Amino acid sequence: MTDATRRNFLRYVGMVGGAGVMYQTMAAMGLAPDPAAPAFAAPRADDLQGKGKSVVILGGGIAGLTTAYELGKAGYKVTILEARMRPGGRNWTVRGGTEETDLRGITQRATFSKDQYMNAGPGRIPQHHITLDYCKELGVAIEPFTNQNADGYLFREGSSKLSNTPIRHRAAKADVYGYVSELLAKATDQGALDSYMSAADKENLISFLKSFGAIGNKVPGDAAASFKYTGTGRKGYSVAPGAGLEAGTPLAPDALSDVFASGVGNYFSFEFGWDQAMMMFQPVGGMDRIPYAFESAIGKDKFVYGAQVLSMNNTAAGVSVEYTNPGGQAKLIEADFAVCTLPPHIAAKVPGNLPADVIDALKFASPSDAGKIGIEYSRRWWEEDHRIYGGITNTNIDLGNMWYPSTGFHGQRGTMVGYYNTGASARVYKELSPEKRLGRALDQGARIHGDVYRKDVAASFSVDWGSTAFSEGAWVGWSSQTDAKYARLLEPSGNIYFAGDHLSHAIAWQHGAMTSARAAVTALHTRAAAMVAG
Amino acid sequence: MTDATRRNFLRYVGMVGGAGVMYQTMAAMGLAPDPAAPAFAAPRADDLQGKGKSVVILGGGIAGLTTAYELGKAGYKVTILEARMRPGGRNWTVRGGTEETDLRGITQRATFSKDQYMNAGPGRIPQHHITLDYCKELGVAIEPFTNQNADGYLFREGSSKLSNTPIRHRAAKADVYGYVSELLAKATDQGALDSYMSAADKENLISFLKSFGAIGNKVPGDAAASFKYTGTGRKGYSVAPGAGLEAGTPLAPDALSDVFASGVGNYFSFEFGWDQAMMMFQPVGGMDRIPYAFESAIGKDKFVYGAQVLSMNNTAAGVSVEYTNPGGQAKLIEADFAVCTLPPHIAAKVPGNLPADVIDALKFASPSDAGKIGIEYSRRWWEEDHRIYGGITNTNIDLGNMWYPSTGFHGQRGTMVGYYNTGASARVYKELSPEKRLGRALDQGARIHGDVYRKDVAASFSVDWGSTAFSEGAWVGWSSQTDAKYARLLEPSGNIYFAGDHLSHAIAWQHGAMTSARAAVTALHTRAAAMVAG
Repeated sequence: MTDATRRNFLRYVGMVGGAGVMYQTMAAMGLAPDPAAPAFAAPRADDLQGKGKSVVILGGGIAGLTTAYELGKAGYKVTILEARMRPGGRNWTVRGGTEETDLRGITQRATFSKDQYMNAGPGRIPQHHITLDYCKELGVAIEPFTNQNADGYLFREGSSKLSNTPIRHRAAKADVYGYVSELLAKATDQGALDSYMSAADKENLISFLKSFGAIGNKVPGDAAASFKYTGTGRKGYSVAPGAGLEAGTPLAPDALSDVFASGVGNYFSFEFGWDQAMMMFQPVGGMDRIPYAFESAIGKDKFVYGAQVLSMNNTAAGVSVEYTNPGGQAKLIEADFAVCTLPPHIAAKVPGNLPADVIDALKFASPSDAGKIGIEYSRRWWEEDHRIYGGITNTNIDLGNMWYPSTGFHGQRGTMVGYYNTGASARVYKELSPEKRLGRALDQGARIHGDVYRKDVAASFSVDWGSTAFSEGAWVGWSSQTDAKYARLLEPSGNIYFAGDHLSHAIAWQHGAMTSARAAVTALHTRAAAMVAG
Repeated sequence: MTDATRRNFLRYVGMVGGAGVMYQTMAAMGLAPDPAAPAFAAPRADDLQGKGKSVVILGGGIAGLTTAYELGKAGYKVTILEARMRPGGRNWTVRGGTEETDLRGITQRATFSKDQYMNAGPGRIPQHHITLDYCKELGVAIEPFTNQNADGYLFREGSSKLSNTPIRHRAAKADVYGYVSELLAKATDQGALDSYMSAADKENLISFLKSFGAIGNKVPGDAAASFKYTGTGRKGYSVAPGAGLEAGTPLAPDALSDVFASGVGNYFSFEFGWDQAMMMFQPVGGMDRIPYAFESAIGKDKFVYGAQVLSMNNTAAGVSVEYTNPGGQAKLIEADFAVCTLPPHIAAKVPGNLPADVIDALKFASPSDAGKIGIEYSRRWWEEDHRIYGGITNTNIDLGNMWYPSTGFHGQRGTMVGYYNTGASARVYKELSPEKRLGRALDQGARIHGDVYRKDVAASFSVDWGSTAFSEGAWVGWSSQTDAKYARLLEPSGNIYFAGDHLSHAIAWQHGAMTSARAAVTALHTRAAAMVAG
């Protein structure tokens, strides 16, 4: 087969059999070196024989944008109704001049300096997410997101000796891995695990543990002295290795009991996560480069901003959607199909003729809350004073996670995420005024970084997603993603399709919104192509 | 004290007591939030009361450049003799047009495309190295160096089941940490380690291991079934979590015996290293942005390029150095002081009146070899086909480490480091012609990446540091850095000082060259200032 023939064949397989069958066919053809990459065949104009159908898309977030963009490739006439005055939904980059009134009626206006910004919603992209494919296709430049830094801190409030003090990730790892290695090497050597391992396994394991934990050798006849962890330069130095005779003074290990009591190791697995392990990426200049690139590719004329949906109905001819335009006038749009990408708990409240089981399914989703604050400093004290270049400080206090900026290294200014928290921690800040949120964030952050944390603050902006209009939550959870209620939304209701990260197994990721949109596009297009062919 | 008074006081302490005393004084004054950062007080013009001394610097590598730059701040008249036609020494960025003839007489001319390059020497900078301070001071922009990537490969030749096949870092970690956690949790729970841990320690440890290894719970009364590692999505997926009902199919765990027999865990500790843990950085546009920035700050008129040293002598008045200029003429330069930054094994061969103990000390260093190949591809197949965005693939075959580029993501082209090897592996390639080095690198790399590795090769350039003129080695080792021979070079020989990464505990790092140069500058300047003060 030529490349073109192969592509056409696969598109045919994808349209007839769906993505799963297409993927297996690709794998059988030896075309899928990365089996984790989802297959998708974008609709083509040929498929509709020039008889483009019209589609109204509710919501101009990532799912709505992906839907419009992919359908647009096949010549569908798309209209995107978006309640906000910008594309992207929760993909929202706050810059100087950004103004937002929350559901409490409190207005914030960001005063960040030029080139300073805060990604209030999604902030990072793993390598394997199709978000990167869209960045490439749309020409959105990317740069590394610093999701891990050995010199970032772990801070855990508590009553153990190592509680309430910042500990560098590297220091925590050195001690935890040292003691884990010592203990497992001892148990292995003493025969405690002989029923699980052969002699060769034991030898291989101990060889690994020596490297992993920087532990000592076996002391024949002295189990207690064997495989001792006595510290390592991996932990860091009180005096760094330097010129001449300065070999450096490694930080001493903390005691085993203190290390495990502190809980500092409980964050390590974050860095191994499928969606969180480095390398991670972000668009250069702000996450909203993605929605604006979509908007440009789709055509700005296809968007109605400030459009609040009043009703959606299946009709004999297709669908009809009423909305208010920014001038407050009620408008009606009719189309062959609709794709509803509104958050399910908001879609459930839209009047119309969706059947009760669909409304029930939409209501089945539980919104979760999350909050973030961006704090611009006029001095990059984290680099200058703490020698931290990007990365995350993780806490068990209400700050949750703190992000040092992934860009602008060595510049004059920088914008930290002072907290990124969820659940009960998010609720602590939710009820506060923007000024009090900043005050609390500074007080809490100073426990970790010292008084420098309160100095040189140039601007701040906080968002609580639960009290953000048109979102009313950061993302949703389902008590089950295998039951009939969830599954109901994967099928169209008449001519209305549903899409969004909430209809995926990558909830709260743009990847989820994109894969869900692709599934809706494939389903809608297969039907439309059959209608045209029929 | 005012800031200015404080700075002057510290400078005084530094000059009188040296960096160690100054650092302790700073710490006592609460001025040293990061104790690992070395203190240094740059010489000032005031110190010499307008009576600038002359210094000839042998070698325009990082140590020579740092020396010239810092002395220049105090008005010293510096001259840098550099045998190459460029600054930087082993800090060398190969671009299209770079030409080099090795000690075998073989000439390579790089044909890399515009904006493509290979850092043939140093390639990465840890956060805590003063290399970053110089980048900041000299205005050299930096960006992350991708020293770690969960989706890079581990490849280990051998006879185990998992040998001879590429394994993603994330997959290796998931299995190793899973089994380590299962085994240690079992041993702990069964009381095998009771003599080392309290009941609370055991509980805390098991809590950590559950998170760290993604293992199961205790099954009361069934030790074998307790805390089982049965796989995790952290390892990766054969089908990724996606839209609708697609929860993903995690890759199954490999068997414990196979995992430990493979040795894949033996590389993990690299990522915890003091000098290697993320975040790491590189200058935007090539490592040689650093030497060129130094050159510009020092003044190009201070450099004599193509200057090969013929002799160096202490004289009654100071020092005299003979060299050939690029036209082949012998020249003589006299100065108050010299700082010799030549590699010690090369300095030892320079005729002159250095005493025998100094020559012995210079000869005491043992040069090590290392090699690198840069391979430019006209397609970023590692991103497109393998979904690898930067990072390292580590092997136990003669390739050593392979680096995917840290920049140019989603671009048209990219330049990999196809091998970065040392010792016996470096010697395999050392003896080959540039063409045969590339051929072998492609054959070996194809074992990991498949046939794609041989396609779309646009250019390549290889360096073997042992056969590189004016270096004759990648770096040096000492059998001891506490003995008198090594220490001899930390003192001047008459008016000749020595500096270089070889005189530090950060050998092979620019940081080592810089800290050593600072130590030489401090010693020389203290002496010169005392002479002036009379």
